[in-house]
Amino acid sequence: MMHKLLILSQEEKSYSALIEEAQLPELKIVTQPADDLDIVLGDPSLIKATLASLPALRWAQSIWAGVEPLLDPALRRDYILTNARGVFGQLMSEYIIGYLLAHERRIFQMAEDQKKKRWNNSNTGSLRGKTIGLMGVGSIGAEVARTAKFFGITVRGYTWSSETSSDVDNYYHGDKLPEFAKGLDYLVNILPNTKGTRKIINAELLSALPPHALFINVGRGPAVDEAALLEALKQKKIAGAVLDVYETEPLPQDHPFWTTPNLLMTFHTSAPSLPKDIAKVFIENYKLFIEGKLLKYKVDFEKGY
Amino acid sequence: MMHKLLILSQEEKSYSALIEEAQLPELKIVTQPADDLDIVLGDPSLIKATLASLPALRWAQSIWAGVEPLLDPALRRDYILTNARGVFGQLMSEYIIGYLLAHERRIFQMAEDQKKKRWNNSNTGSLRGKTIGLMGVGSIGAEVARTAKFFGITVRGYTWSSETSSDVDNYYHGDKLPEFAKGLDYLVNILPNTKGTRKIINAELLSALPPHALFINVGRGPAVDEAALLEALKQKKIAGAVLDVYETEPLPQDHPFWTTPNLLMTFHTSAPSLPKDIAKVFIENYKLFIEGKLLKYKVDFEKGY
Repeated sequence: MMHKLLILSQEEKSYSALIEEAQLPELKIVTQPADDLDIVLGDPSLIKATLASLPALRWAQSIWAGVEPLLDPALRRDYILTNARGVFGQLMSEYIIGYLLAHERRIFQMAEDQKKKRWNNSNTGSLRGKTIGLMGVGSIGAEVARTAKFFGITVRGYTWSSETSSDVDNYYHGDKLPEFAKGLDYLVNILPNTKGTRKIINAELLSALPPHALFINVGRGPAVDEAALLEALKQKKIAGAVLDVYETEPLPQDHPFWTTPNLLMTFHTSAPSLPKDIAKVFIENYKLFIEGKLLKYKVDFEKGY
Repeated sequence: MMHKLLILSQEEKSYSALIEEAQLPELKIVTQPADDLDIVLGDPSLIKATLASLPALRWAQSIWAGVEPLLDPALRRDYILTNARGVFGQLMSEYIIGYLLAHERRIFQMAEDQKKKRWNNSNTGSLRGKTIGLMGVGSIGAEVARTAKFFGITVRGYTWSSETSSDVDNYYHGDKLPEFAKGLDYLVNILPNTKGTRKIINAELLSALPPHALFINVGRGPAVDEAALLEALKQKKIAGAVLDVYETEPLPQDHPFWTTPNLLMTFHTSAPSLPKDIAKVFIENYKLFIEGKLLKYKVDFEKGY
């Protein structure tokens, strides 16, 4: 039996070349939706827009970890949805460690001193001996925990129930958020966007952090109460924030985040989906698919991840 | 027998408190030079200025790794000089990884995009799969190599002869500098200041690097031919430089480095001597000293390290 694959991504050509190079059996890459097309690989928002034209769809492989556009209860769920996992851990760790080091080693301050020709040789901080709190310890969080441990950072993990990473020194669940937050040097959100995570980073949680704490959001925007975060920064209840994701993306031009002091923005770029990484996930799953085996990284439409 | 210790550092009070807390036997901390004073702990330049007033000096413990001021052949060498080692590895690694991530993840560019309210979500780079060249693989270099390997970076080491770190993938010696430099993504100098390292980073070496290479100097300033580096940056023979050390420190106000594009300056702050770290080195060595044992980290006045 011949399978037909449609690729829906700005980087369609890279994906196409990488998949053709793998010479997968019984697979034809097509460029248009078709009645007998059974596989799609792509950006969840593009897949959503095409769902109605793919009556024979059996499997959709997302190139992103987050698949919110496809979770809308009004949409069909009569196909297998798999997301991209296992490839974002190092990229996310690099982002987090990069911004933690920019903070501790005063990388922006040094550039400012250079601009003003100021030989400022006061001592900088270090990661060693600090404490980080990770909200969400899935495959990405586990890799962040491993990297933090490498630098001598103590790691706390907040999860619904799982305690799978041995690099986490202490786990917290349920209503233990205030204990989890107490005394943290760094708070990092890596949670997916689900009903249970909406505005989980709110005024109460931010107030539980010490004033020197840095908050980083690489999970999803809706996890943060944006008004509460602005207020916490304004009142200096925390030292700073680094945000990669937002309630609305791209962030509207009139949003106060653009101009808030001690807030560094990036643009949903913390863990880019690189075709060479994601094509590997697809190729591995395709081999399972044609053998009728269980696919890896299957999304539960109810849970949302 | 009672030993007398003089502490010569801006952070004399911290050192004094830490050493007193250790309750070392037969040790008296004094605040002035004396004829019967036998031990000094401090900044090498301050020790140099005091050498003539310490006729009974038997041991000087430097709080820095670099001891250039005490290597002047005109000075006496009738005492044991030990330097600080083993404590700078993580701090130096943090500095190097911090600036490599700032470079790859475009941390300054993102801040500029934020300032201009530009949602720039183009993909960033990653450390994984890159190649770093370390000039000097002593205790600091070995720790930098270990950190680089953690992030999936291939490590080359240039040393006189030693090949002690197993985290270095390939070693180069003697006249093999051009082979060492070829194709490097990052070149990092960690060499001490000795006759053999003077201007070792010169026009020829810089020309052997690819145009996307980043150069970082955390060793000593005289290792770099500063005019050649300026020219290489101007001609875009390399992508950028991060400098922590200079031929003359503090850097003179009229030096072109302050205003050179793609050059980031820091102020001899890459691995600060933190009293809590250095006091440990002194305490360990003092115990060896009173037992008449060999001290750790003894400097060879001829070799210079």
